[in-house]
Amino acid sequence: MSAMRKKKSVKTLKGDQTKALILETALEIFNERGYEATTMRAIADKAGLSLGNAYYYFRSKEYLIQAFYHRLNEAHLAAALPALDRDHTLKARLLTVMRLKIETMEPYHEFAGVLFKTAAHPESPLNPFGEESDPVRRAAIELCEKVVEGSNARIPKDLRAELPYLIWVYSMGIVLFWIHDNSPRHRRTYRLVDHTVDLVDKLITLASNPLMRPLRKQSLRLLDELRNAAADLEADEETN
Amino acid sequence: MSAMRKKKSVKTLKGDQTKALILETALEIFNERGYEATTMRAIADKAGLSLGNAYYYFRSKEYLIQAFYHRLNEAHLAAALPALDRDHTLKARLLTVMRLKIETMEPYHEFAGVLFKTAAHPESPLNPFGEESDPVRRAAIELCEKVVEGSNARIPKDLRAELPYLIWVYSMGIVLFWIHDNSPRHRRTYRLVDHTVDLVDKLITLASNPLMRPLRKQSLRLLDELRNAAADLEADEETN
Repeated sequence: MSAMRKKKSVKTLKGDQTKALILETALEIFNERGYEATTMRAIADKAGLSLGNAYYYFRSKEYLIQAFYHRLNEAHLAAALPALDRDHTLKARLLTVMRLKIETMEPYHEFAGVLFKTAAHPESPLNPFGEESDPVRRAAIELCEKVVEGSNARIPKDLRAELPYLIWVYSMGIVLFWIHDNSPRHRRTYRLVDHTVDLVDKLITLASNPLMRPLRKQSLRLLDELRNAAADLEADEETN
Repeated sequence: MSAMRKKKSVKTLKGDQTKALILETALEIFNERGYEATTMRAIADKAGLSLGNAYYYFRSKEYLIQAFYHRLNEAHLAAALPALDRDHTLKARLLTVMRLKIETMEPYHEFAGVLFKTAAHPESPLNPFGEESDPVRRAAIELCEKVVEGSNARIPKDLRAELPYLIWVYSMGIVLFWIHDNSPRHRRTYRLVDHTVDLVDKLITLASNPLMRPLRKQSLRLLDELRNAAADLEADEETN
């Protein structure tokens, strides 16, 4: 039994390595030729694998991109979770997580630009808001939850429930800015993070004020309405 | 002299008719085949014109889309300007202008979806935020200026200066929602307009409060930073 388990884990390890090899190779070719022009055959050839073997690990090119998102997110989690232990204010925690988001994506800046040309389309399966990105998005929103929950900020329940999602949307905006940012070392993105984190923190404080309750409730209802519309739209497109 | 002027104006009129004919024909074919698959030759053929004649009026397909934006905006202005005379509160004026925006675009809903597939890309010359859309955008922002200036709302100078642009960005968001809205008679978009106009009006009142001055100033600085970044990005792309 123990021998069998060992054998299986060696096999899994080998599978993981092959998977990683395919992903690395794909990112290289995407970078050279663009996403659209790259075929699974070209990826398999360059990785020294049969086409069937490549398809065994990734059912299509889109799954490669999802794997890429997944890897970026894992790197972010690995960097952010220990760093969060140091910070207790919401502002400091938000700043840590946002700065590390950019830092961990740094090696892929060029590729992110290539990818964006495809992913920006709302109907693209590569769109981070789309259904295919669900698992990675959920993991990313969970991190935002930790940012809020581990802080000493006093936030009313209604807002607290939506805040992780809102912070995630905000972080997507920062990533979008970073993709287009050509300033040296992306200084401009880091400055934007500093300024917006400060502003977001102040807005949360303002929205948490009891006097703001009606306006806050109304805003949250609107958020809900928008999300329902987006979900219905996605359902529509699937049945079409 | 008078005869000559008359002759010239007849010629201009004929030119305007040909231009309108080309635009109508183009919209029809775009609708049938999509924007990408349509050639200037197909448009000229269907309109019964020589290719040279079609190019004389529109240097490329993109100019046709700009002409389409222009026409939509003219229709909106023609409907909104007289209607604004009735309303004096900012909320009522905003509601009038937003509802008429959707109403005047209504006949082109299907085409707007076709167009959006191309125009959504930030680097597309059809993007409403891009440089090529400058004249129409300026005219649309001017209308937003009238919405603010003709109202009895008390808005501090700093916010008042940026409000027309912000209202225009908000209206683009509503248009985006409408493009994807498949509810009967676009009821959902109208409901969204009602809810967001109410919220926007309250947020303007809040932001105009003297206590909000520091936060308002900070938000406006951020807006400026974002716009500068967008302008630099556009300049970058032109030199590349």
